[in-house]
Amino acid sequence: MGREPSLTHFDATGAAAMVDVSDKAPTLRIATARGRVVMLPATFALVEAGRAGKGDVLGVARLAGIMGAKRTADLIPLCHPLALSKVTVDLTLVAPDTVEIEALVKTTGPTGVEMEALTAVSIAALTVYDMLKAADRAMRIEDIRVVQKSGGRSGDFHAP
Amino acid sequence: MGREPSLTHFDATGAAAMVDVSDKAPTLRIATARGRVVMLPATFALVEAGRAGKGDVLGVARLAGIMGAKRTADLIPLCHPLALSKVTVDLTLVAPDTVEIEALVKTTGPTGVEMEALTAVSIAALTVYDMLKAADRAMRIEDIRVVQKSGGRSGDFHAP
Amino acid sequence: MGREPSLTHFDATGAAAMVDVSDKAPTLRIATARGRVVMLPATFALVEAGRAGKGDVLGVARLAGIMGAKRTADLIPLCHPLALSKVTVDLTLVAPDTVEIEALVKTTGPTGVEMEALTAVSIAALTVYDMLKAADRAMRIEDIRVVQKSGGRSGDFHAP
Amino acid sequence: MGREPSLTHFDATGAAAMVDVSDKAPTLRIATARGRVVMLPATFALVEAGRAGKGDVLGVARLAGIMGAKRTADLIPLCHPLALSKVTVDLTLVAPDTVEIEALVKTTGPTGVEMEALTAVSIAALTVYDMLKAADRAMRIEDIRVVQKSGGRSGDFHAP
Amino acid sequence: MGREPSLTHFDATGAAAMVDVSDKAPTLRIATARGRVVMLPATFALVEAGRAGKGDVLGVARLAGIMGAKRTADLIPLCHPLALSKVTVDLTLVAPDTVEIEALVKTTGPTGVEMEALTAVSIAALTVYDMLKAADRAMRIEDIRVVQKSGGRSGDFHAP
Amino acid sequence: MGREPSLTHFDATGAAAMVDVSDKAPTLRIATARGRVVMLPATFALVEAGRAGKGDVLGVARLAGIMGAKRTADLIPLCHPLALSKVTVDLTLVAPDTVEIEALVKTTGPTGVEMEALTAVSIAALTVYDMLKAADRAMRIEDIRVVQKSGGRSGDFHAP
Repeated sequence: MGREPSLTHFDATGAAAMVDVSDKAPTLRIATARGRVVMLPATFALVEAGRAGKGDVLGVARLAGIMGAKRTADLIPLCHPLALSKVTVDLTLVAPDTVEIEALVKTTGPTGVEMEALTAVSIAALTVYDMLKAADRAMRIEDIRVVQKSGGRSGDFHAP
Repeated sequence: MGREPSLTHFDATGAAAMVDVSDKAPTLRIATARGRVVMLPATFALVEAGRAGKGDVLGVARLAGIMGAKRTADLIPLCHPLALSKVTVDLTLVAPDTVEIEALVKTTGPTGVEMEALTAVSIAALTVYDMLKAADRAMRIEDIRVVQKSGGRSGDFHAP
Repeated sequence: MGREPSLTHFDATGAAAMVDVSDKAPTLRIATARGRVVMLPATFALVEAGRAGKGDVLGVARLAGIMGAKRTADLIPLCHPLALSKVTVDLTLVAPDTVEIEALVKTTGPTGVEMEALTAVSIAALTVYDMLKAADRAMRIEDIRVVQKSGGRSGDFHAP
Repeated sequence: MGREPSLTHFDATGAAAMVDVSDKAPTLRIATARGRVVMLPATFALVEAGRAGKGDVLGVARLAGIMGAKRTADLIPLCHPLALSKVTVDLTLVAPDTVEIEALVKTTGPTGVEMEALTAVSIAALTVYDMLKAADRAMRIEDIRVVQKSGGRSGDFHAP
Repeated sequence: MGREPSLTHFDATGAAAMVDVSDKAPTLRIATARGRVVMLPATFALVEAGRAGKGDVLGVARLAGIMGAKRTADLIPLCHPLALSKVTVDLTLVAPDTVEIEALVKTTGPTGVEMEALTAVSIAALTVYDMLKAADRAMRIEDIRVVQKSGGRSGDFHAP
Repeated sequence: MGREPSLTHFDATGAAAMVDVSDKAPTLRIATARGRVVMLPATFALVEAGRAGKGDVLGVARLAGIMGAKRTADLIPLCHPLALSKVTVDLTLVAPDTVEIEALVKTTGPTGVEMEALTAVSIAALTVYDMLKAADRAMRIEDIRVVQKSGGRSGDFHAP
């Protein structure tokens, strides 16, 4: 592996920096991330009941995730600001106790959008937690990861 | 179960709302949340090496987590804005492959600070991911949850 | 008219300033604002169809309005930051062509929350426009105003 | 018109999404929006007096509108972030009781800037309200709409 | 002085933290900061000419400073969010080449507002620079400091 | 020089505006800014001691500066939003009493990045102040200026 992998966000003296992407061509980049919120079955039932239109937890979380993706460069210190060209966030109920979250983000730019996809999933998950916390304090946000990534010099990636 | 537990963030018609806390007395409230980032042992070794001063991943993530806690009400749609009186974020290396994150948040206010503590952990975890993603695309953010909460009408909570 | 009414946001030299509220007691303050979006009947029909669950324009706008209320002091240069204790935004379909919007905001603080209520209505209205603009470019946002206000030294107000 | 007009911000299942613009060529896009604030003639007189340099309501509102345009993607959930290349906001006194507001926004990008122009007008109008509300609680923000739009696949638009 | 002065924003292990102010009583706190922008006399003449109403550099900078004060806790990592009760920013032309800036900030809260006053001065100074940079690239922002501070346990301070 | 230099941020009537850059080609632009914080030698010693890992004032300020650069268009009213491609902030201890700060910013865009570099220096300097203010209230932020600029129609600039 030679000198690599190194920590790209630090210079030779160890100082943090936003890395130089001015030489990278803007190309189409896509990333998909996933995660889930695990809760009590009784809490899950509340979310399921809300889908009928009275208390749409998933709709609120979807929107929070989309808006969160747009705030990524504000939140993650060394992230480059990017003009996102698409963001979708899908939340799926998986009985008996899990809300699955998937976010897909696209840009035409010089860096990838994994962080935007991961941030969308994280903020959506936090929003699910917020809306259900009065009913269930022991929920857990689990397994947030990138599942697919394409575009850019480093090649495509599919989670094993 | 009677009428409860219900979804406090929705009114009788199912519309989302920021719930009324104007009747709740401002009291001291504390919440602690935890989570972790799991990575390849080789990636873990890079973080560990950085502690010696050349590439302080944990220091950057700590700061991002603290700043993230202050942005909670901007990110989570139905969260009340709160004047936080303390935020700490601790990151611990647990060999061979894990960064443990713990955030503690305090306020004197009418609602709890679980969401601020969870947001601090989430943003710190995302920042760890960002700084290491060039070396390891398969990292996972795991097990974000509230471990302790005190203050407020609903009583104290310790995760089992 | 005597010395009054004067422009409270300017000092004796005409310079803009955030006025001093440090002598004002924090009391419960409530404000309600209203506005509407007027569109083609065919566009209105699209919104109505979405209430059945496929394309919830009103749900998205409600959330945008609530989040907008929390950003008021960021947007309006001379507004004081306030810890809002309640925000609700209601959107009602009024056949054949109108979405009515009402926002109610509460705080316990030294200044009123009219601006927060008006901002919530404005952002909700803009969001309705955004989601329908591909279908109807000639929509209009109409009649945004405060309809009720209570708390504070200046007494209660009901729009005539 | 066939199946159209449909709600572009929702997918086939009715879920809200930021629509994909990655296939759209970046072209010059211009949008102009207008609106007005209607007030008591006595309040109008205060604004007019301020133009002489002691209390420049219009100058403050102009700046708030320009800054508001830059925050559009933060405020409107499904708006794409855009690099604006020009923003102007003009406020005109129309005796005896009206402040007319017009905003023009330009970008070279994949989507139009109607929302940015409408947001600029809205935030400028709210700022006018804020600075005059101590004198006049019954002001109204009226008739915010797009008056002109050019660039992009959907063709030019002039309000009738 | 014993162990003091120490770095209050770091814990015993050297980790940065937002310090705990939950035990501090909310009291009235006031801070005044100053700074200046030094430019070519020809540039100064342009600013002076603008005071007559065509190009009010000082008015724009004043507003930017006030809005900047409200963003302090977003910008300075370990600052506590505070509900500011007053912000004023004054800009004075001092011939032949200097714009003097003074900001005064008040809050009733558990920590001081020096950072808010300094941030207001800094953002106002940067805004002066921005508006004049096409005419003069060699301007300098000088001598930003706290000149007065009152309230809180550490006692009053007047710059010597 | 004829009619120039004029105030580019104001139109013919003296109204502030974000100037039109839609005709300017996106080219690589680089700006470097500098400034310093001057303090008591005893305070300087505290910062120096922190470099050994217990209280890294410079690391926190570096990160704040980088994040501040990304917020420039939010803070400076008439600045264009830009997609930054690189940001570095270096802080150097200059005995006996000075922290030197230098920021370098790159973009490929239609306008320069002097304001982003100056903002990075300013926010880093304010953060240094914040972390040391309990020890030293009389610190001063000095001499913030652009030292180099390249790219764009106006040609390169090196501070004399």
